[in-house]
Amino acid sequence: MSRKTVLAAAQLGPIQRAEGRGVAVGRMVRLMEKAHSMGAEVVVFPELALTTFFPRWYEEDLNRADHWYEHALPSNETAPLFEAARKLGIGFHLGYAEKTPDGRRFNTAVYVHPSGEVALKYRKVHLPGHKEYDPVRKVQHLEKRYFEPGDLGFPVVRAPVGGTEANLGLLICNDRRWPEAWRVLGLQQVELVMLGYNTPSLNMENRGFEAHHLRVEHSQLSIRAGCYQNACYAVATAKAGTEDGHELFGHSVIVNPQGEILAQATTWDDEVIVAEADFTRCELGRSTIFDFARHRRPEHYARIVEQVGSEAPPVWRPGQSS
Amino acid sequence: MSRKTVLAAAQLGPIQRAEGRGVAVGRMVRLMEKAHSMGAEVVVFPELALTTFFPRWYEEDLNRADHWYEHALPSNETAPLFEAARKLGIGFHLGYAEKTPDGRRFNTAVYVHPSGEVALKYRKVHLPGHKEYDPVRKVQHLEKRYFEPGDLGFPVVRAPVGGTEANLGLLICNDRRWPEAWRVLGLQQVELVMLGYNTPSLNMENRGFEAHHLRVEHSQLSIRAGCYQNACYAVATAKAGTEDGHELFGHSVIVNPQGEILAQATTWDDEVIVAEADFTRCELGRSTIFDFARHRRPEHYARIVEQVGSEAPPVWRPGQSS
Repeated sequence: MSRKTVLAAAQLGPIQRAEGRGVAVGRMVRLMEKAHSMGAEVVVFPELALTTFFPRWYEEDLNRADHWYEHALPSNETAPLFEAARKLGIGFHLGYAEKTPDGRRFNTAVYVHPSGEVALKYRKVHLPGHKEYDPVRKVQHLEKRYFEPGDLGFPVVRAPVGGTEANLGLLICNDRRWPEAWRVLGLQQVELVMLGYNTPSLNMENRGFEAHHLRVEHSQLSIRAGCYQNACYAVATAKAGTEDGHELFGHSVIVNPQGEILAQATTWDDEVIVAEADFTRCELGRSTIFDFARHRRPEHYARIVEQVGSEAPPVWRPGQSS
Repeated sequence: MSRKTVLAAAQLGPIQRAEGRGVAVGRMVRLMEKAHSMGAEVVVFPELALTTFFPRWYEEDLNRADHWYEHALPSNETAPLFEAARKLGIGFHLGYAEKTPDGRRFNTAVYVHPSGEVALKYRKVHLPGHKEYDPVRKVQHLEKRYFEPGDLGFPVVRAPVGGTEANLGLLICNDRRWPEAWRVLGLQQVELVMLGYNTPSLNMENRGFEAHHLRVEHSQLSIRAGCYQNACYAVATAKAGTEDGHELFGHSVIVNPQGEILAQATTWDDEVIVAEADFTRCELGRSTIFDFARHRRPEHYARIVEQVGSEAPPVWRPGQSS
């Protein structure tokens, strides 16, 4: 049986603060139709795809921020996405701000089967930024204020994608820089990682020597290493362009299990890129150089779970035996 | 106080099976002198630097393989390295096959202070290849036969390097592909990772679709991601060229904490490359995006230590709630 399917990243250009969900959803339906016309059976939308990247705005009282969150999925406003998926027979990944019935807030992503059912749900674990207003920063990055860390771990399921099935996992934005996240997926034999991101083109911490021109490279370096070292595909989709005066970079990519970029977006706007995946290509890495059962040595990895922060090493001086 | 020093990778061209240690040591002393003349205060030699890459040769009776191992360090044969280091005031990293007094065999690396003292010792944890003769392979890769997995963990020490000091860690060859290894060093605030490698230009497992042209890229991708994600420098030094008819790739690199390549070897022969490191550059990453204490979530990393191999995920089917 063929294990091939065509994957799409549906990059979104900017969504301004004043724009309602209807505008975003309309654009996303058009991108889904375009992806379908290019043969795609799976479409990946960005993180927090329905609104502007609101964690750049400070809100003293979180209860006044409820309008940024989805309280149900689908809702009247997001239903057109589910209808288009059903009509086109296409699965989709959606990132959104989730407020639960009991009042908890998460940065969440789902993979929705063409039937409209949620096959997989994930809540972002690695929240970047800060919780309180930071007067030093030019622009706030308040993800730690607006969300609590995800409580679902890094789940993987084997689910239908197009005419085949694959082991699916989800990451969100900053997660892609953390090899622990990729590895926990790899240990569940993930074959396709879907991830969305909203990443500013400039670091806003006002710290001296960060190389701004490397920010896209750092994103792609992390994704490519994650794919290679866990022998999986990834579709990584940006929200891009100037939102409310602040630029987010694009460069959405589809990456194969050798860490090669198969397709890349080159605008800062709505754009669809597609590439064919053959999930049998995941077998080489995981049965040879990354055959975990033969090669991993967890007895030496204890610090990864026993420490949160780093610890200073012992000091060695000449005249002291090693 | 300045935290700058000049680092060197001293790549070795091939060492043939028939060549004695004296030939290799003579070449290494000349490379050390050259590195010193280029301003280097630390020189990194490759993995198993004193002999041909002998794990490509099968030996039924390991007791007949003793000549590949060092039984003491320094020995009469390796003493010239220690003398040159003392004379030049240069620290060096050496990879070698170690046989202990009680008969254990390890793939080992040390960092030697100019005083001749061993400041740090490491035994390779991630042994690639296989233990028994494999008739399918064109060339054997018997590291699992010749060595047992390292028993020292991934130690880091703060030690003098040139006129400053830095937190030093060691990896060996295949370790560089394992993000767990880098992370355990990062959790000890490593600032400089020294690593040597012997990597064949061709995968000899005779498996279909491995992309041979990507083998250098995979090495550098792993090193660059390890440096970026742990905010450290690395000096990664190859043994290169055609040994006993089998090619090892070169492309030794020095990489900075942003994951950029500062210097790269471009021959398949003895070659010195140098670059200046400024260890204050490690602070940006570890105090912002990779401030582990603020951002890591070990409660979701348990699989990394609780599993060795991967496990199949649950299956999701339409009509089944998520």
